[in-house]
Amino acid sequence: MRSSLFTTQTTSDGVIEHDFSIGDVPGVLWAPPAPPAGTPLLLLGHGGGLHKRSPGLVGRARDAVLRDGFIVAAIDAPGHGDRPRNAQDRRWVDEMLADRAAGRSMAATITAYNASLAERAVPEWQATIDALTALPEIGPDAPIGFSGMTLASAIGMPLVVADRRITAAIFGGVFVYDALIAAARRITIPIEFLLPWDDPEISRASGIGLFDAFASEDKTLHAFPGSHFTVPVDRIDTRFFARQLIR
Amino acid sequence: MRSSLFTTQTTSDGVIEHDFSIGDVPGVLWAPPAPPAGTPLLLLGHGGGLHKRSPGLVGRARDAVLRDGFIVAAIDAPGHGDRPRNAQDRRWVDEMLADRAAGRSMAATITAYNASLAERAVPEWQATIDALTALPEIGPDAPIGFSGMTLASAIGMPLVVADRRITAAIFGGVFVYDALIAAARRITIPIEFLLPWDDPEISRASGIGLFDAFASEDKTLHAFPGSHFTVPVDRIDTRFFARQLIR
Repeated sequence: MRSSLFTTQTTSDGVIEHDFSIGDVPGVLWAPPAPPAGTPLLLLGHGGGLHKRSPGLVGRARDAVLRDGFIVAAIDAPGHGDRPRNAQDRRWVDEMLADRAAGRSMAATITAYNASLAERAVPEWQATIDALTALPEIGPDAPIGFSGMTLASAIGMPLVVADRRITAAIFGGVFVYDALIAAARRITIPIEFLLPWDDPEISRASGIGLFDAFASEDKTLHAFPGSHFTVPVDRIDTRFFARQLIR
Repeated sequence: MRSSLFTTQTTSDGVIEHDFSIGDVPGVLWAPPAPPAGTPLLLLGHGGGLHKRSPGLVGRARDAVLRDGFIVAAIDAPGHGDRPRNAQDRRWVDEMLADRAAGRSMAATITAYNASLAERAVPEWQATIDALTALPEIGPDAPIGFSGMTLASAIGMPLVVADRRITAAIFGGVFVYDALIAAARRITIPIEFLLPWDDPEISRASGIGLFDAFASEDKTLHAFPGSHFTVPVDRIDTRFFARQLIR
């Protein structure tokens, strides 16, 4: 793939990797060597405190390229990865860490911080989709999916509400607040919801409530023992995007 | 496959199908054309009121042969399919249908009927495993899985407790009573649990309670809207037995 969007290109074991920037938002794109026009685009969000090249994300990106032939993109959320963290975001992060260390509820801080990050990140993802669908290998009619847990769900759910170009999504393991419930009620695309069954920081009941709120007819819940830090990807992989995005 | 166990052999689209009988229990076996020694054996249980050749079961059996190369076996539960129903079983079935028609709880009747069927069916499945593992294509060390919802879970769960030759199982959509909770607490093999999320006849909470009771470290729950009559097999398929039984 050639585009003025891309600043670097490397190849590793059959996957082409490009860095790109949309304004001041840095991103990375993984692609097969010669994707045809209309190749499905999978957007991968990173979790809170992580970034666009976190190892788990890169592993899922490479799998989607090699198994399904998808083009995959990730961007850094505001204040994550290569992006500077502003003073307010630093205060929220400090509060969360202090809450966790003291065994206090992080609910109020996570709600404020995630909602603020989502408000900023949704237009960034939309600009990313604009730029990537201008590439001939993707194009305006390519199927687009979004996948991401925790912070990536807090961003991805309002993104799916705002942008009808995304037609299938995987969410889960997310701290639940009212705005997310409201977003779920407006989401009708096929979804999978991944639920850590025994998460010490996110109650099972709140996850079940969020799953129930999705308006999608095609929705499934996949629950696994443990917390959102240990997701047994193979055990809950239903080849969702291969079914949803390959026509 | 040749064996004095088999009474008929037919071939359809690459799947060999044999009828067999173990004592007075009729069964059917689906196999690839030339399975090697040690081929994994998948046991498929049928739901209440159904039988060993119900269309959904046959579809799953053929998939397991064609996709995974497994040998698959099903037998009729007592009073189901080709087996005569005794007077007590007929009374239980009549009571259940009358309960359902009148909108009454079927709990007491299902508990008594399913527990009785399981008590009779467990040794029948064990005799079936004995006979099938004597076939050279399977043999005594072949991996064995069990899959079945509703009545098949009510039978399969005590079967797994009784017979350590089964090393992976899929259960779900089952009416829950105390003996099943007790069985789940003794089950440690990898399991998947399929949960109809809005079943009018089986409460969500009882299904969640049963999932929680499994002692297995490797367990996942897969929930889908609707009842146990409409299981979206593709949407919850994680290739469980391919991961568990293929060495």
